Amino acid sequence: MASVNPPRGMRDFLPADKARRERVLGVIRERYRAHGFDEIETPVVEDYARLHAGIGGDNEKLAFNVLKRGMDAEAIRAAAGDPAQLSDLGLRYDLTVPLARFYATHRGQLPTVFRSIQIAPVWRAERPQKGRYRQFVQCDIDIIGDATARAEAELLVASLDTLDALGLEGGSIRINDRRALDAMLDVFGFAADERPGVLITIDKLDKIGSDGVIAELTERGTTPEAVAAFGAFLLRPETLEYRPFGEGQIRKALPEGVPDGVIAHLVGIGDSVAAARGADSLGGVPLVFDPFLVRGMGYYTGTIFELAHPSVDYSLGGGGRYDGMIGRFLGQDVPAVGFSFGFERLVDLVPEGEVDAGSSIVLVHDRDVPVAELVALKAALVAEGSRVRLEQRTKNLKALLERAGADGYSTFATVSRGTPRAELDLRPLG
Amino acid sequence: MASVNPPRGMRDFLPADKARRERVLGVIRERYRAHGFDEIETPVVEDYARLHAGIGGDNEKLAFNVLKRGMDAEAIRAAAGDPAQLSDLGLRYDLTVPLARFYATHRGQLPTVFRSIQIAPVWRAERPQKGRYRQFVQCDIDIIGDATARAEAELLVASLDTLDALGLEGGSIRINDRRALDAMLDVFGFAADERPGVLITIDKLDKIGSDGVIAELTERGTTPEAVAAFGAFLLRPETLEYRPFGEGQIRKALPEGVPDGVIAHLVGIGDSVAAARGADSLGGVPLVFDPFLVRGMGYYTGTIFELAHPSVDYSLGGGGRYDGMIGRFLGQDVPAVGFSFGFERLVDLVPEGEVDAGSSIVLVHDRDVPVAELVALKAALVAEGSRVRLEQRTKNLKALLERAGADGYSTFATVSRGTPRAELDLRPLG
Repeated sequence: MASVNPPRGMRDFLPADKARRERVLGVIRERYRAHGFDEIETPVVEDYARLHAGIGGDNEKLAFNVLKRGMDAEAIRAAAGDPAQLSDLGLRYDLTVPLARFYATHRGQLPTVFRSIQIAPVWRAERPQKGRYRQFVQCDIDIIGDATARAEAELLVASLDTLDALGLEGGSIRINDRRALDAMLDVFGFAADERPGVLITIDKLDKIGSDGVIAELTERGTTPEAVAAFGAFLLRPETLEYRPFGEGQIRKALPEGVPDGVIAHLVGIGDSVAAARGADSLGGVPLVFDPFLVRGMGYYTGTIFELAHPSVDYSLGGGGRYDGMIGRFLGQDVPAVGFSFGFERLVDLVPEGEVDAGSSIVLVHDRDVPVAELVALKAALVAEGSRVRLEQRTKNLKALLERAGADGYSTFATVSRGTPRAELDLRPLG
Repeated sequence: MASVNPPRGMRDFLPADKARRERVLGVIRERYRAHGFDEIETPVVEDYARLHAGIGGDNEKLAFNVLKRGMDAEAIRAAAGDPAQLSDLGLRYDLTVPLARFYATHRGQLPTVFRSIQIAPVWRAERPQKGRYRQFVQCDIDIIGDATARAEAELLVASLDTLDALGLEGGSIRINDRRALDAMLDVFGFAADERPGVLITIDKLDKIGSDGVIAELTERGTTPEAVAAFGAFLLRPETLEYRPFGEGQIRKALPEGVPDGVIAHLVGIGDSVAAARGADSLGGVPLVFDPFLVRGMGYYTGTIFELAHPSVDYSLGGGGRYDGMIGRFLGQDVPAVGFSFGFERLVDLVPEGEVDAGSSIVLVHDRDVPVAELVALKAALVAEGSRVRLEQRTKNLKALLERAGADGYSTFATVSRGTPRAELDLRPLG
């Protein structure tokens, strides 16, 4: 007999887990909707060519590809050298590529500024490890059609509000702009071909520190003058003193040469989040400018941001502006910016909610109660607003009641042949 | 540039459609949960071997299979003759095979009688046609571990209640038992090898009538004596007078020779549904015994049923007992019975619900209002409980407001630079 486990790296969700996940998703949906976002859905598969067009970055290599139907052995042998001949579809590895495709298809039926919610699974054939799964849920919001700081501000305010509603107050956002990063690399004189590597190293700043970054750049043989200039900048005392957020702090944290428009856009976001959220307990805005924030995806063209929370030392979400991507599908550039919760991380942090609003009842019945009596009694209690489970009495009544308590039931009653509704003796469980 | 349409036979859902679908799913979830069912989730893919083990019937041929990762052209050529070498996973074509696998994996953590809800997409590579899609949602409830009529009665009462809650009162169930069908074919003397064909023909009774059934059986060269005896039975005037449901009617609708246990099980279900639901407006129970109901899936072993509604001439759902299937995974037989809503059909029938509980506001702002003012105003209204969309004023204000009305917004206000919350003039839309 074959193994009965779910496929490698994927999970089943038992009732308690599933209920918890649905509860968290319900809060996210409701809050984002209040902030004017509308949920959409696309198929879980997209055309193979679209998933492998170079916009998915490293994720493209992790796609699960679907075999074309109706190929015989000979056709398969003929197609063996060309993946695009063998596969016509693939499971999506993110929700951004499908959104761009969706927008291109349906633009005429959407508002000029389209605020979307997508809450759906994605798949990546990664080596399974703790906390990393081959099927996992992403929660994305995106604003398409707005190039102004209003878009970032709406995304961030809505996401911080959602985090509050989940009982996780105190979240904050680290923000940067790809154009500021590019200008910085320009200013210090890094060569074009070494920049991707330089960014990968800068991205490790939190882990390896300034000295570690300088050492790694030197070791890799990066232009020595550039490393020296950048190193001096990195080691200035004011480099890590860019809080609270504001034009003065941003300018102080950056070298000369970053375009004014980039700084004005950042300031606009900061002012808006401050106006909407008020000052936090430290007298600052829940927004931190971080000139060394990088984020991996190659499609970002402007602001990039990450969500932090004091209870954990990893990011709970992030996003950025990707003004170039929609154009790949539409043939016409449209500004776009998105934020994504790390749902699988978030769901483990959310405090337990109320078990059940209404009453929930386990009816423990003798074996000889006629089925029609039981089913009618249950229907009457459900009609009164309760959640009801029927259980035939077993020798170990205690175990049966504990099991029901663990499943969220709060009361029970025993039912013998002929017990009428009015005589049910409801008692608290446990 | 590649086509921007979703993959063949699959659909995108725009905001209005998605909201409608989620609303219907929410009602189904809530009602089934009240009836003591618990939602679970399994991965969308299952092992190739499991999906192609012969229990999925014709659906096995319709599976989308996933190419193994990391195969080079040579490995693909070597595997070309053996699908199981080429694919290790497939997209599930139903929720019953995954449920049986889930139950085998997690039995120790589930109640003795496990009542599950599964609401999730499935995939079938069928030829796309009107109303038939390659990705569609199934809503299944199943009861595992209960061989009595209590199980069928709970499924059917919960499903009828859910239909009521969706605003589709008046649903009714046609019911039969595979064992009664088998006994009938026995009694009339059909040969074992012609029975599958005979059942396929009987299944067309609604469409082609009694004469059509007899003609088709004759034409196909079925044992003439059996066709004659069955034909005489079919043409009795009482054959189509089996309502209302009750032991007398059931016995009258069947030939001699159907085991008493099968009839008692059906009567138990009928009595229970009657006790829970009361008589319908015609003085009968919303349950009809139909000795000629067949249903296609080979894995059914006992009762089978279909949900009808007066507004349509097709079935809105159905199910049956499949006591043998769990044993395929567990190595030990466990009774099981399931019901599945035809969600894609149902969602089109459900009357429109309330648009939005709270107020929903479109803020139409001048171009020169600072972003921070806008975002703060929006946040204040959201905090008061509204759903809020920001829109920059365009020349065609009327079109902008109509668009927002179509998206479910009920009020609007115009915002100029410096408009405070207290001076917002909220007006109804349209």
